[in-house]
Amino acid sequence: MDPEFIDSLVIPNDTKIIFLIMDGLGGLPMGSRVHTELEAANTPNLDALAKKSICGLLDPIGYGITPGSGPAHFALFGYDPIKNNIGRGILEAAGIDFPMTERDLLIRLNFATIDKSGIVIDRRAGRIDNETNTRICGKLQKNIRKLSDVEIIFEPVREHRALLALRGENLRDEIQETDPQKTGLAPFPPDALVAGAEGTALILRKLVDKARVVLSDENKANMMLMRGYSRYRRYPYISERFGLNALAIASYPMYRGIARLLGMVIGPQPGTIKEEITALRDNYGKYDFFFVHVKPTDSRGEDGNFDAKVKVIEEVDSLIPLVMDLNPDVFVVTGDHSTPAALASHSWHPLPVLLYSSTCRPDRVEKFGERDCITGGLGRMPTVHLMGLALAHARRLEKFGA
Amino acid sequence: MDPEFIDSLVIPNDTKIIFLIMDGLGGLPMGSRVHTELEAANTPNLDALAKKSICGLLDPIGYGITPGSGPAHFALFGYDPIKNNIGRGILEAAGIDFPMTERDLLIRLNFATIDKSGIVIDRRAGRIDNETNTRICGKLQKNIRKLSDVEIIFEPVREHRALLALRGENLRDEIQETDPQKTGLAPFPPDALVAGAEGTALILRKLVDKARVVLSDENKANMMLMRGYSRYRRYPYISERFGLNALAIASYPMYRGIARLLGMVIGPQPGTIKEEITALRDNYGKYDFFFVHVKPTDSRGEDGNFDAKVKVIEEVDSLIPLVMDLNPDVFVVTGDHSTPAALASHSWHPLPVLLYSSTCRPDRVEKFGERDCITGGLGRMPTVHLMGLALAHARRLEKFGA
Repeated sequence: MDPEFIDSLVIPNDTKIIFLIMDGLGGLPMGSRVHTELEAANTPNLDALAKKSICGLLDPIGYGITPGSGPAHFALFGYDPIKNNIGRGILEAAGIDFPMTERDLLIRLNFATIDKSGIVIDRRAGRIDNETNTRICGKLQKNIRKLSDVEIIFEPVREHRALLALRGENLRDEIQETDPQKTGLAPFPPDALVAGAEGTALILRKLVDKARVVLSDENKANMMLMRGYSRYRRYPYISERFGLNALAIASYPMYRGIARLLGMVIGPQPGTIKEEITALRDNYGKYDFFFVHVKPTDSRGEDGNFDAKVKVIEEVDSLIPLVMDLNPDVFVVTGDHSTPAALASHSWHPLPVLLYSSTCRPDRVEKFGERDCITGGLGRMPTVHLMGLALAHARRLEKFGA
Repeated sequence: MDPEFIDSLVIPNDTKIIFLIMDGLGGLPMGSRVHTELEAANTPNLDALAKKSICGLLDPIGYGITPGSGPAHFALFGYDPIKNNIGRGILEAAGIDFPMTERDLLIRLNFATIDKSGIVIDRRAGRIDNETNTRICGKLQKNIRKLSDVEIIFEPVREHRALLALRGENLRDEIQETDPQKTGLAPFPPDALVAGAEGTALILRKLVDKARVVLSDENKANMMLMRGYSRYRRYPYISERFGLNALAIASYPMYRGIARLLGMVIGPQPGTIKEEITALRDNYGKYDFFFVHVKPTDSRGEDGNFDAKVKVIEEVDSLIPLVMDLNPDVFVVTGDHSTPAALASHSWHPLPVLLYSSTCRPDRVEKFGERDCITGGLGRMPTVHLMGLALAHARRLEKFGA
């Protein structure tokens, strides 16, 4: 079923839906351990909730696919993650919560070192620090503000990475990337790859030339390389597709940025998980969909720190009663993908999900964990259909056909 | 997999397949109960059958989608329910088992009340009773039989609802609905919505004018409103797709009508479930596919009457030995969708299915119920693929590829 099919069935209701997303929730046994992080964690509240819920396993994209954060979250919100594959430039912009407009061409910048003959000798400019990055972006911005009616915006990201935004009319993204992808070569020219993109190519060529002059007195970051050109086109908003007035509660800029792309209101930026739940409670009356994003499960998984990931899960568990207090119509607890500490990276393993609602049909799962969820009533399903299920349980979809 | 893929693999055989469909079978625990209707029912025969069968859960349309009877049955018979979404006018015609032809344009009629200035003041004409409806349809039919070579047929449905069929050449359904959907407005004109539909629009305009004159002496039903225009186009028959000679045994007109749309022979109209099973046994030698439709499971679910639905399931259970006596090659017991008494309506929850055959691989399910079927060998699957599985177990599909 096309994930957009449900859009035609959406009806208004005043029910409320909460998505509590523990980033990288799914795990693996590590070393001699027999349990995954979630199975090893002491989670009395999640277990009690699982008993009243319908459980299952989610495949974020498809069998064997390890997702990035962008597609994994698009799937969670009911957007086909392959059809709506988000451009790298847009993701870089979302990652710093950059407010994009429909006139923007977004580009990932790497600062690099070139030698006197213009050959790239370090694609990462010796991994300059964030402060140097900010200083260099400021210098570029001061010297380059506009080219042929196109506004030029530099924003530091971190280390040697930055965002370049061109804001103007009729900008195109079918441009050759200038990063040669290895040292020993000169940067490629930003040539038009299709007829019609010549205007944009010309602006970018002038921009590269100007930047090279501005950076000529730098030791390390004396050149910029461009890739991941993405013309921003607005996605249909969650409000438009599902009639939901959505609030995003997320500490990390990337997830705030992704939520913004889908038209969610961006809540306060809490520091702790507890503060996120407080923000949820404080704003519960004002919205009807809540995306609460917990980052440290993923970070500890990326660190390869099994025990620290277990601790984060236990911290979330301790806060579950504060969510259930709100008496939500639909409460989903899951992640965006697996980040097993054993692999210290995102992985392709499906991840556990529970959906609690007074209209859910409980299954026999008594504990929230990967192996228990295998026998859950949701079975193993693609993440992209989770939003439709949440809407159904919230009585926000009408009958199909008579 | 495209559900029509199996068509190319169909081979003849003299095996027999029975689909016993308990409408609205799937349920939910209600109030303080822990079991669904099917779980609560005492079903020794179905449980014994489940032990010898392969079991699972069916999604009629897709995750979260609550189906109407039309799409849900199309899926059961292996027809993609979204691609073949059945028009409202056709469903109205099927609902009264009206024999459609390929020259027909089917339209849902509402009798309504208009005031002297032509404004709709009651869209349902005070919900006139069935007798009045029949009288009015008779009066219209007596006065309007033909317009410009197009035959006009009025058939009462119930209360204020009727079917209007236009039978002629080149009729189109891209016509504006005349029902303004609220009171205080005049009916809309039946204008052509696309070039080429003007001829049909002209006939409908004349028809509305004539009907208004004929109905001018009625107190309540002094106007007719038209919507759900559907040009009937024949679906590929079950005989054509699967080589099956199919008999439909159903008490309710709607299901007889749907079966007729797919080319099934329509059996006698039994009054009780027992009589349906008797009709199955009496006709077992003459056909090779049997659709036996049990309505009261759905009706009692719609009533919100948990215990009465349990009783209907127990009645069906008691008749299972009479079916097994026939020694069918494939015997499927399931429903078209869930109708939990707890919700008193159709719902999106998947529903249990068992497929018995001497060629099935039994699983560990020992009881026919929603939670037991979760761990069945069929897993959770879209209903549309059930027909292919039935054909395979009946040895009616050849190998794909060498």
